[in-house]
Amino acid sequence: MVRQARSEATRRKIIDSAVDLINEIGYPAAGLGDIIERAELTKGALYYHFDSKEALATAIIEEGSETLLEAFRAAGRASSPAMENILHGSFVVTDVLASDRVARAGARLLRTFGAFNPAAKRTVEILVNELVERIKTATAEGDLRPTLDAETAGASILAGMLGSELLSSTLAEGSDLRARFARTWELLLPAIIADESLNYYREFLARQATRPTSPG
Amino acid sequence: MVRQARSEATRRKIIDSAVDLINEIGYPAAGLGDIIERAELTKGALYYHFDSKEALATAIIEEGSETLLEAFRAAGRASSPAMENILHGSFVVTDVLASDRVARAGARLLRTFGAFNPAAKRTVEILVNELVERIKTATAEGDLRPTLDAETAGASILAGMLGSELLSSTLAEGSDLRARFARTWELLLPAIIADESLNYYREFLARQATRPTSPG
Repeated sequence: MVRQARSEATRRKIIDSAVDLINEIGYPAAGLGDIIERAELTKGALYYHFDSKEALATAIIEEGSETLLEAFRAAGRASSPAMENILHGSFVVTDVLASDRVARAGARLLRTFGAFNPAAKRTVEILVNELVERIKTATAEGDLRPTLDAETAGASILAGMLGSELLSSTLAEGSDLRARFARTWELLLPAIIADESLNYYREFLARQATRPTSPG
Repeated sequence: MVRQARSEATRRKIIDSAVDLINEIGYPAAGLGDIIERAELTKGALYYHFDSKEALATAIIEEGSETLLEAFRAAGRASSPAMENILHGSFVVTDVLASDRVARAGARLLRTFGAFNPAAKRTVEILVNELVERIKTATAEGDLRPTLDAETAGASILAGMLGSELLSSTLAEGSDLRARFARTWELLLPAIIADESLNYYREFLARQATRPTSPG
């Protein structure tokens, strides 16, 4: 048991060191040697847990994606309209990206690997399906335009979120992600929300958008 | 002159081999050793031209971005409304990404590096500015909603394009990028186009969207 706990602590140290380096200098520049040095461990300890740099990346993608997905799902309430849960959940995602460094590194790795890492690809598939299902519910609840295609809207919303993460991270070190999401939603709302729900969701968005991001 | 031409041919061979590997297995997995082997060159020849893997990535980002930007700019005609040029230009970008492997690898590297590579960051800045300027012109021409903020619209449109590239590349090996752009534009048009121009641009989009992508 003691040995297992120590082994788990070592694994954690490796992941945390890799995460910090990925967030500070990017995945391509973060060498295994730098990660070992930061973690104050030996090459052997690292290779005991991860047989390659990509195996380490996969672990970060899996942990980061789980954190993001859990936060997005927990933001929803069964009693709330699905469209409220989508909107609120998207801002919760910006908070998690600002405050959780594993989630932030995971998001970077998603766009670094895309199809070339099975965990990254699976995460993107889950995100698309999650959004499409919620949009179908929101359509059934009458909040969305009846002509709206759920697959189109889900893919376009996710594209906007992923692209905003890249822009915010590239141009503002991630600091303006909440504001970027708010502006994209402002643009999208009249395109997707049914006329009779539009005023309500504009007010709902305004309340969400001005809420400050949790401290990171 | 002969020596210079041979040197340029070697540089080209290195870039082309790196580009192919990046498109086949992704940048992280493409080692310098694999690139040398594919190019049938020595380590010395590679290091004569590029002092690191990232220097090679920078050259690909620069060349790919120039190809994309030139194609986007050439797609515009001074005599056409700015909004037509934006729409048409965006589909030309999907064609270039499908047919030009350096541009395709460059786009992958943009999202791999983000802020961590100056050429990637500069390209993203140029893309934002280019779109914002055109949107200002389109607004002055009366085609866009007068309340539309050019910076917001430019950033949101670019986010949608970058995110669609990631989704298409991850989920469909890039084969459905034109269709994804078309669906996102369909969603965005009523949000950004002035009521009196909306029917015209819906027809313009329909014509653009059904045009087949050039063979790759």
